[in-house]
Amino acid sequence: MSLQETGILARIRALLPGGEELTDDCGALPPAPAGQRLLVTTDLMEAGQHFRLDWHPPDLLADKLLRVNLSDLDASGAAPFGYTLTLALGPEVAEEWLESFLRGLATASAETGVRVLGGDTVGRPSGLGLGLTAFGSASRWLRRDGLRPGDRIYVDQRPGASLRGLRKLEAGQRWDPAHPDADLAAHLAPKPRLGLGVRLAALPEVHACLDLSDGLSRDLRNLAEASGCSIAVDPALDGDALQGGEDYARCFGSALLRSELETRLGIPLIEVGQALERRESPLLAYDGGLLRPLPDLSFDHFGRP
Amino acid sequence: MSLQETGILARIRALLPGGEELTDDCGALPPAPAGQRLLVTTDLMEAGQHFRLDWHPPDLLADKLLRVNLSDLDASGAAPFGYTLTLALGPEVAEEWLESFLRGLATASAETGVRVLGGDTVGRPSGLGLGLTAFGSASRWLRRDGLRPGDRIYVDQRPGASLRGLRKLEAGQRWDPAHPDADLAAHLAPKPRLGLGVRLAALPEVHACLDLSDGLSRDLRNLAEASGCSIAVDPALDGDALQGGEDYARCFGSALLRSELETRLGIPLIEVGQALERRESPLLAYDGGLLRPLPDLSFDHFGRP
Repeated sequence: MSLQETGILARIRALLPGGEELTDDCGALPPAPAGQRLLVTTDLMEAGQHFRLDWHPPDLLADKLLRVNLSDLDASGAAPFGYTLTLALGPEVAEEWLESFLRGLATASAETGVRVLGGDTVGRPSGLGLGLTAFGSASRWLRRDGLRPGDRIYVDQRPGASLRGLRKLEAGQRWDPAHPDADLAAHLAPKPRLGLGVRLAALPEVHACLDLSDGLSRDLRNLAEASGCSIAVDPALDGDALQGGEDYARCFGSALLRSELETRLGIPLIEVGQALERRESPLLAYDGGLLRPLPDLSFDHFGRP
Repeated sequence: MSLQETGILARIRALLPGGEELTDDCGALPPAPAGQRLLVTTDLMEAGQHFRLDWHPPDLLADKLLRVNLSDLDASGAAPFGYTLTLALGPEVAEEWLESFLRGLATASAETGVRVLGGDTVGRPSGLGLGLTAFGSASRWLRRDGLRPGDRIYVDQRPGASLRGLRKLEAGQRWDPAHPDADLAAHLAPKPRLGLGVRLAALPEVHACLDLSDGLSRDLRNLAEASGCSIAVDPALDGDALQGGEDYARCFGSALLRSELETRLGIPLIEVGQALERRESPLLAYDGGLLRPLPDLSFDHFGRP
């Protein structure tokens, strides 16, 4: 099935919210509301590296591509408004695949209230690369470097479901929309709690936040290192929760106790650790009553030796 | 030579202007100056499609990737301030290649006064994909849809040199920095006249502008169709000028005569056509004293049947 750049652009214009305004080489970003700043984030997803064409239905993949970018914005305290899209398409990508992908992106865009602002589509010799750059505006830029010793660290979703979903896919299980499996859904179409980050940013007692994407162990390490702290990991966390990746929970540090935060936010939270003054290692775990350095259990998603 | 995402990020932080601020999942866009709007544009370049590793020295390729994006912004009247960068790297990309690419990007960033604001780096099974999303601010968004019947159409650089450079590469000639060839330079490291578009946008008599990237024939067609006009092409233009691509000249329509524009802008201009009320075809050429439709002489850079 042949694909032409002009034909793809026509489908993007017809399907995606905001697409009808893609008539120039540039797109316009709306001005930030008074007192707010614009934030930008970008993520690439490559077939064979971040997804597999035989595992990931194209509409779910589009939903994931958009939401993982919006997750980064939200964890930084930004309400999203738009995105640019880049598609690098090898000859193995069929027109039907692209149509389903764009329809999934259109649905996810409408659900999350964002518009396409621009993009580029090119051919490539083989493979498939998807890129999305998302924009939002924040009253307070909630960063990862604000954690303070004594802060408790919370997440809003229990990590590990995405890793269980990945294992099920590796074992041969496939997504069946008639019988949705929660672990497969967590991996194929994660639903970060968008909007929670913006609410957290409005609380001065919340000091730092990021979204869990590289695995709790790696992300807590990043949080500790950016803030110049160490983090003592909660003993109740198991290996799956620590090693997993692509959880897309909000992970944040606050001086407030769990019960008070739960009351204010109206959702249950899970405490995953506590910040300490910097020790010999950014990540520590209790071992026989003593805090010892925790090795890096996650992996480099770059995936090369 | 092994590449790791963390190692690449460290080099980006060390080398690129603005890189030292890449510490979070998001980057911040500076607010637009009062009365201005932010514009965004994005371009992908794929090995085997838009460049060849054995033709394009990595430092020149980085320079081109940045300048072709800034060219889009400038032709829209926007002064650039920053960009995000995405790299999708197959195993054939060596560490030395990437180091030279980033050093070239650092030099081009410094020369054009822009800063890196964010990005993403991933592995992929094979090949090499480069993406850049650039941001600028414009007092007046100079679009392609404002051409008026009677406007003369000008370019600031004679099209065709990039196509001649491509032919020389195909014939076996290679870039030699000790003996730079002007045609090879036009193809490998084009130097659009950045800043001219911002000056054109300040002239109310300039009605529409774009940068020449798909070949004069295709770009004039786009200009005419966006504006609901037809364009009569200047009879002096030869096939190379019409068919070429990647010229990155500013191409604009204005009610002003060439001599007056040249005096105001202080640079020579080339008249390439004149806008007419819409006829049966967007692009027309004189043939025996009569205006006849001009067939589309350019090609789809998507490059697939």
